[in-house]
Parts: sequence; structure tokens; C-alpha cells
Amino acid sequence: MRMIDIILKKRNDLPLSSEEIHFFISGLVDGSIPDYQTSALLMAIYFQGMDARETVDLTRAMMYSGEVIDLSGIEGVKVDKHSTGGVGDKTSLVLGPLVAACGVKVAKMSGRGMGHTGGTVDKFAVFSGMNMELNRETFIENVNRVGIAITGQSAQLVPADKKIYALRDVTGTVEQVSLIASSIMSKKLASGADVIVLDVKTGSGSFNTPESARLLAQSMTEIAINMGKKAVAIITDMDQPLGYAVGNALEVKEAIETLRGGGPEDLREICLVLASEMLRLAGFASDEITARKILEEKLHNGEALQKLAALVIAQGGDASAVFDTAQLPQAAFSLPLKSRESGYITRVNARTIGEAAMQLGAGRKTKEESIDLAAGIVLQKKTGDYVEAGEILAILHAASAEIISGAEAMTRTAFELGTKKPEEQKLVLGRVGIY
Amino acid sequence: MRMIDIILKKRNDLPLSSEEIHFFISGLVDGSIPDYQTSALLMAIYFQGMDARETVDLTRAMMYSGEVIDLSGIEGVKVDKHSTGGVGDKTSLVLGPLVAACGVKVAKMSGRGMGHTGGTVDKFAVFSGMNMELNRETFIENVNRVGIAITGQSAQLVPADKKIYALRDVTGTVEQVSLIASSIMSKKLASGADVIVLDVKTGSGSFNTPESARLLAQSMTEIAINMGKKAVAIITDMDQPLGYAVGNALEVKEAIETLRGGGPEDLREICLVLASEMLRLAGFASDEITARKILEEKLHNGEALQKLAALVIAQGGDASAVFDTAQLPQAAFSLPLKSRESGYITRVNARTIGEAAMQLGAGRKTKEESIDLAAGIVLQKKTGDYVEAGEILAILHAASAEIISGAEAMTRTAFELGTKKPEEQKLVLGRVGIY
Repeated sequence: MRMIDIILKKRNDLPLSSEEIHFFISGLVDGSIPDYQTSALLMAIYFQGMDARETVDLTRAMMYSGEVIDLSGIEGVKVDKHSTGGVGDKTSLVLGPLVAACGVKVAKMSGRGMGHTGGTVDKFAVFSGMNMELNRETFIENVNRVGIAITGQSAQLVPADKKIYALRDVTGTVEQVSLIASSIMSKKLASGADVIVLDVKTGSGSFNTPESARLLAQSMTEIAINMGKKAVAIITDMDQPLGYAVGNALEVKEAIETLRGGGPEDLREICLVLASEMLRLAGFASDEITARKILEEKLHNGEALQKLAALVIAQGGDASAVFDTAQLPQAAFSLPLKSRESGYITRVNARTIGEAAMQLGAGRKTKEESIDLAAGIVLQKKTGDYVEAGEILAILHAASAEIISGAEAMTRTAFELGTKKPEEQKLVLGRVGIY
Repeated sequence: MRMIDIILKKRNDLPLSSEEIHFFISGLVDGSIPDYQTSALLMAIYFQGMDARETVDLTRAMMYSGEVIDLSGIEGVKVDKHSTGGVGDKTSLVLGPLVAACGVKVAKMSGRGMGHTGGTVDKFAVFSGMNMELNRETFIENVNRVGIAITGQSAQLVPADKKIYALRDVTGTVEQVSLIASSIMSKKLASGADVIVLDVKTGSGSFNTPESARLLAQSMTEIAINMGKKAVAIITDMDQPLGYAVGNALEVKEAIETLRGGGPEDLREICLVLASEMLRLAGFASDEITARKILEEKLHNGEALQKLAALVIAQGGDASAVFDTAQLPQAAFSLPLKSRESGYITRVNARTIGEAAMQLGAGRKTKEESIDLAAGIVLQKKTGDYVEAGEILAILHAASAEIISGAEAMTRTAFELGTKKPEEQKLVLGRVGIY
């Protein structure tokens, strides 16, 4: 078998066989296939696509390119959740403790965040002393004992994805549904969960249009089913940020409020929708009404919040901030951004808010950069709100006044005002999955 | 400027600016653009194409990526000729001496041949002692004095093409008209000729269908005109080998017979068509009838053959074989391949004959391989001929009986027989060019 023939076949729009896909992934990982051939194949896939069978084969080959985690030491159904990423997306912080409080086993492995804010692993760093690099034994023991554990992704997980992703990033082959789906699903499947709930974002703060979101949702759930897993994908809006807070400690605070039964309406609703799917797929509820009843009880009786504290403590962290959010990292400087005009907010561009938060220090562009946990933006107004001239649109937080003034203008451009109240945008746009 | 943006632009079907194409070629040559980005761009070009302006810009950037030969030291119009390559294509051996005998200045630089037989440089190696690596001064002096000189291509000529071609070969991006045209024309233009006659082959022994041949002919002549040169492209048939001989010394023998006024009808005709264009473009004849008259005279009065001898002698070679072809290298073994049936030859597949010749030792697969100058095939029958069972179809020549028997079956499969005489195939299929 030769890589050149595989490239030509795909270029000529013929489906690759399982053996050819396996040959490609093995050669990629062992270094026998040079990067220039891989990038040519990726560009050919960009143009010709892959059918469902090819996508499953690619995912499987990638999944088995490295370590595959064995979670059989955990009793019960193991549930995982993945979001395609957005701005102010703190659902993982809420969902883990919430469904664990219902008895679902949550064994979560997270990559380090790249982008507007840190990832889930970064956000937990607000609890001082918390160990986010558990060894396999402790990880499994904690899930069994506490019901939830969260750890950084093993460096040995899906090495093929690391190589392919690095190449896609610099060769213009990121936006291809089979490549996106196999990248996400190979890691989820190698992480060992039985049930996977996918949150596919659409809108300015995501990488998807409604159409591409639906294709991606279909592709990912098809892969899961073909690999013998249960999966559902929920398509949700990310045109404006989710909740009000964007930034690590700021988002943890909002997540804690939500776990306490409060929190922003949109965040709470998306968490209930996703958590309901997790309970249903795991067999803890037969329908959404039952699931929501169980979940709301856990939010109101304090068990969900207690589970977050138990998670932090089990991993050696200081959980006092869970009950007193004033103890979370606080930025030295903050600035209220005031509206210059009056009118209805017709849009809060999530991407722009995300980029402004990154400028404030909340995110990282390269793996080596450090994150300012306290930095970020707290919106005071969202789409549909009426604002008077001089009223505060958002509060910016950062380590210095200079940093803040550098992000002020950009934050302002995220807000679009009009004279008419805009139509309310749907939060949940679709649901894909068979189970 | 960033290469990733250039890739994305082409991927999204937007034309690249002159500056972007220049940036790509400079970065390719100085090594600042990695191969994996180049191959991604090449695949994007494969799918999206390049318009005429982009193709000219690419050719110009490639041409100036290395040495550009200055032929101003040669008096008169300098004419070059290029063939897209075929099986048994010995036209260069005939055309050079023929048009030089008419007074046209022929300053020919040739690459080393890769494929079924050697290139022009390899073929001249049959004249012992001939120096095919002339320095620039001797080269120019010889053209002025003898009217013709031929030398191997400078290693400094169009380094961008060497890199791009090596990548195209292993990434499935060979068959793209702008990439083919810019590869050929950047080398021709850097070689300094004023007038370029292109022989674009079509059929089984070439890389072109009639449609792709026409596109390539158009693209190459457009480039030449945009670069201020005169050019004509002739589209010729290469479905069966040209002439009867395939193999280095065997082809030289056939070329000598043609220069002597004889030779196979098809070879002689294509040489007259191409040489007429060379004379017209160089201003030595106003029309084809006049040109052919001049050319036929040079073939019959011995001046064309004398010019070949003068060329060989001027470069230090032994020209005695020019007048006594029995002195050319001879293979130790030969085998007459006899037909098993009677019938009309409906096809002699050029590609298959080429591959059989390569097996006999006439060609090389890698630059390092050596060539057996004496090896090859001499057809005895061509398309349209009637053959009786037991009659000889071809004679195979090689260094050992084992090598010959290894190529026997393949040679046989090149011949297709039928009961009806096939329609005669046109030799010259088209002509593209403005001058």
C-alpha cells in the first residue's frame, strides 16, 4: 500500500477502504508518512469529503492510535459530555456535579483550553490545591467513591489527533465535518465513556452555521452508534455569550450560582436540557419531564453544590470558595463600560466578546501562555434588553488599567443597538440522536 | 503575509495576487514555507485551478527563483523546442540539426530524462567523448560558430520547479494544467530563447487527453506571449510510438536516417511540421510551404546530417557513427516477437511499449539509475498494418536473454489485432498560438 495511491483515490472522489485509512493513521503516527502527504490528503478530504463509513473508520483508527482508557473499574454507567466550544460556556462546571448528584458516574478528562478562556481544567485551578493530574487508580477510585472526578487528558490519548490537528490548523483544512467529528469522537471514545452527550454550538461565538452544526451533530452521533455507544447531540445557540460571565473565575462564580438553584436563565436552561439527556441515556430517567424534576430537586436541595465541593475536596482542593464566592480570585482593576446611546440591544457578538476577554488575559493563544484566572468580562445587558445612554453594558476585569483600556473599544463593538426589540432567539435549535 | 491565508484564499476559489504568488515561491525556495503547506496549496490549486493571470505570475516567480540564462551573446533569433514527452519521441535529435542547417540559432538545454527512455542529453551519450556539460562561454561560442549547441540543464535553473515537482509527484497533484504549464514554461523562459515551439502530445503514450492537451497548449502559449516571447503549440498524436524505434541508440539511428532524408513517415512529418513553425517564428520563412521547401532541401542535400556531425565534433565527440550507424551501441541479445494470429493491427499501445522498453533497460525510474543505451524495441508493424500469424511484430534488444524474456509478454500486450483495418489516425491534431 502506498500513501500516494490513497491521496489519488480520495482526490478522485473514491471512498477509502478501512485498510487504507488504517494504513494512513499508522504511518502518520509512526512517522513513515511525511507531513506533506498528510496535508495533501487532508486538503483532498476537504474537497471530496468522507462518507459515514469512512468517518467511522477514521475515528476508530485515530482512537486506537494511542492509549484507550479502561473504565471498567467504575461501577455503573459512565457518562461524558462534550461541547464544541463557545464564549462563556461553563456548562461542564454545572453538569458534572449536577448529574453526579443524581447518581450518574462522571469520569471527565479534559484538554487544556485554547482560545477565549481556559478549558474546564483551567477553570478548576481557581480552587487552590486541587490536583488536576490524577493517576489512573485515584481517578477511578474517586469516581467510584465521590461519583465524579476530573483530570487533564493523558498525553498518550489519540496521538494521531494531535498530529492531524496541528497540520489542519496551518493548512486550511479545519472546517471539514468528518475531520472535526473524528477529532472530537476519537478522544471521547478513547476516554472510555458509555454515554456521550454532545453540545454543538452555532452562531458567531462558535465555528458552525446552523447547517454545519446539524451535519456535525449527525456525524458524531453516527460515529458513536457505530462504535456501540449511546449518544445525543443538542444544537444550541452561541451567537451571544452563554450567561453573563466570560473569564475563568467569573464563570466559576456563575456556575456556582447555577448549582445553587439560581444563575442566568439561558445557562440554567441549557444545563437542564443537556443534563436531562445525560440522565435519560444513562437510564436514570425515562423522559425529559421526569429528568428535569430530579435535576431541579438537586439544584434546590443543595446536593448539586455539595457534589462540587466533594469533587474539589476529593482532589485535594480548598472548597471554601464553593460556599463563599468572594474567596475566588479577584482582578485588581475593573471598568464599567457605559452605553453612549439608548436603545434595544439587538446583538452581543460572542466572538468579539471572546476576543476582548482574551485581550484582558482570560485566554491563551499558544499552549505555553499563562492565563489570568481573575480576568474577563461580565455582561450587564444581553440581546433584547433595553439600555439607556450612560447605563452599564459590561464590566471588564484585568490585572492593570492599561490592559483594560486596551480591550475597551473592542468590547464596545460587540454591542449592536437598535430602535426595535429584536425577536427572541431560540436557545435549543435541534436535537440529533438515536437511542 | 501568511501562507495559511494564501492557502485559504485558493481553497475558497479566490484568485491569488501577484504578491501572494511571489511570497509563496520565495518562501518555498528559501525554506521558510514548510512542504506541508506547499502541498496543501498544490492540492487546493488542483481543485480550484488558476486563471491565466495567476498562471503567468506563477511562471514568472518560478522563472526568477534561480539563474536566468542570458543568451544576448548569441547573434540572431534563438529558438527552443519542447515536447511534453512520449514514447519513441526523437524529434529533438532531428529538429536541432535541421533548423540549425537553415540558419536558426539552436541553444538547447535539456534535463536528464526520466521515464521510458532517456532524455535528449542521454541520447547524445551514444557519441563517445561528447561533452554534455558545457560551460556558459563554450555554449554561447559554439552556438555562434556551429549554429547549435546542446548541454545539460544548469542545476541553478528554476529551483522552485525542482521543489514543486518533487512534491507534486508524491502528493497526487501532477495533473493540473497551470502547474504543468508553469513548470515547463518557467524552465524554457529561464533558458533564454526568443521563440518557443511546443509539441503537446496526446494519447496513451502521453499524459494528455485531446481536451487537456488543448488546455495545456493554450496555457503555455499564453504564458509565452505575456512574457514577451513568440510561441506556437502543436498538438500531436502519441497513441502509438512515434517512428519504429524506442530506446536511446535505436532512436538515434532512426533520427540519423530521417536527417538523411529517409526515416519513418510519421516521424518525418512531425519534424517537418515543428521545424516549419520554428522557421516561421524565427522569421526564416513566411509560410509553411516555403518553410517545408527549405527544410526538405536541407534533408536531401546532406546539410542537416552534416550539422549533426558538426554539433557532435564541436562538443568533443566522435561523429563517425553519424555516417555509419553500425558503430552505434548494439545490444548483445535480441529477440523477434512473432504474432500468434493474423489480422489488422488496430492499436500499438505507446504506454505499454514504453514500459516494456524501460524493463529492457532503456529508461530510468530514479535519477540515480543508469541506462542501457543499446536496449529497446524496434517495432516492425504499426497501427493499420496487416500481420500474418508468425510474422514479426517487434524486435526486442537487451543486455541478456533473461531481461528480454522478462519484457516479452508485456510487449505482446501492446499489440491489439482486429479483422477490420482501422481508420487512419491524424498525426497533427491541432495548433495553438498567436504570432
